[in-house]
Amino acid sequence: MAGPVQSIERAAAILRLLAGGPRRLGLGEVASSLGLAKGTAHGILRTLQHVDFVEQDETTGKYQLGAALLHLGTSYLDVNELRSRSLNWADALAARSGEAVRLGTPLEGKVLVVHHVFRPDDTLQTLDVGALLPLHASSMGKVLLAFGTAAPETGPGGELEAYTRHTLVTREDLDRALAEIREQGWGAEVQEMSLGEAGIAAPIRGHGGLVVGAIALSGPPERICDPKGRPQPALIGLLREAARAISRDLGAARW
Amino acid sequence: MAGPVQSIERAAAILRLLAGGPRRLGLGEVASSLGLAKGTAHGILRTLQHVDFVEQDETTGKYQLGAALLHLGTSYLDVNELRSRSLNWADALAARSGEAVRLGTPLEGKVLVVHHVFRPDDTLQTLDVGALLPLHASSMGKVLLAFGTAAPETGPGGELEAYTRHTLVTREDLDRALAEIREQGWGAEVQEMSLGEAGIAAPIRGHGGLVVGAIALSGPPERICDPKGRPQPALIGLLREAARAISRDLGAARW
Repeated sequence: MAGPVQSIERAAAILRLLAGGPRRLGLGEVASSLGLAKGTAHGILRTLQHVDFVEQDETTGKYQLGAALLHLGTSYLDVNELRSRSLNWADALAARSGEAVRLGTPLEGKVLVVHHVFRPDDTLQTLDVGALLPLHASSMGKVLLAFGTAAPETGPGGELEAYTRHTLVTREDLDRALAEIREQGWGAEVQEMSLGEAGIAAPIRGHGGLVVGAIALSGPPERICDPKGRPQPALIGLLREAARAISRDLGAARW
Repeated sequence: MAGPVQSIERAAAILRLLAGGPRRLGLGEVASSLGLAKGTAHGILRTLQHVDFVEQDETTGKYQLGAALLHLGTSYLDVNELRSRSLNWADALAARSGEAVRLGTPLEGKVLVVHHVFRPDDTLQTLDVGALLPLHASSMGKVLLAFGTAAPETGPGGELEAYTRHTLVTREDLDRALAEIREQGWGAEVQEMSLGEAGIAAPIRGHGGLVVGAIALSGPPERICDPKGRPQPALIGLLREAARAISRDLGAARW
């Protein structure tokens, strides 16, 4: 059986590079970032441009992501079964809880947000679909870690990135939190990703009971938590009920 | 200078195939649709799967689009200058007109929706970002055709697809409409794409005055049009004002 096609892997690496960091890169920057000869990088970039996956700025000559990716990305949402089976449950959960709801699935050491229902009030909110959240600092990520659906990305010294002073940055603290999540069946983060934000998440299981994603409620800590700083039992109940209903719809018979 | 990289072109063709039609395809279907040997198609699909651009269903073995595309697609939105420069103007236009606002850019013989502001009322609306609209049957598409930013896709006999009985399906009718759009500086469609829907669009110009996209208002014909069935002059005025403001922001000095 043939190995992976090198030029396609390189093309994917260029797209990933353009999606992160500065978003607009010159040929030299692309080539040196990926350790490619300029001629090789140029051939790939020109092909990506030809298929509308990359655009080149006329003035600066720099490359950026292209329009065809947007259509592919939203087409992915249409075939994502986790998302399509969750839409009604997520709407109902937001309405009942009064909080924002997100659905996530693991991608490249992060949590990819595949659905987002705004908190049902008039506040200005930004759609998070397509965003990547850190595994160890988000409630959904901690749930995916706890149930073995994702593995944490640690730095060279094994340390975890600190987003706030509340982020769990040692493996011991994270492992203790994950054990607790496995035991109680849900996970929380209180100001571990952003100050003034807290979230609780529950696992979603697919065919055969494997955890395939997570569903989360999030909002200000004073709404998500009780006066003692513990997540509100009523919210946890609503969340877990929704997670079980989605899991059943996905074919996880026991949940 | 080297030609395009064939395997990347083929990978892009597979992704485009999975984004259209049935959305889930077996290896044989992918290979025969693109005229590839099964072994070649399999090597490309496995590589695409490896970089999370494609997922394989465990039960059926069929392939579908993968999660990495969603993140790339939403990252594209972040770098799209037409969109980022238009956000505030589009919000204001929706608030002033009371109608839904869309922004579009040409992609592969269609109009790609890069921004969508819901009609400011409580009705249930579906986000259209990432959707592709037909050039000859949408108001934005007709504007992009009129100003030479896109070329129409016609069938083998030169005919245009009929979406409703009002769609312009002959080149003569379409050419007449495009000439009128060039003269008046804006375009409309009344129930040409969907019954019960009408839209008006104006061109957005970039650096040097070239038309780079379009902005549209849409809603029920009885709100978009006057009793004679002509688009409301007040709405056209608001729309063109927004288009000019965005064009100025994009560096089109004269508009």
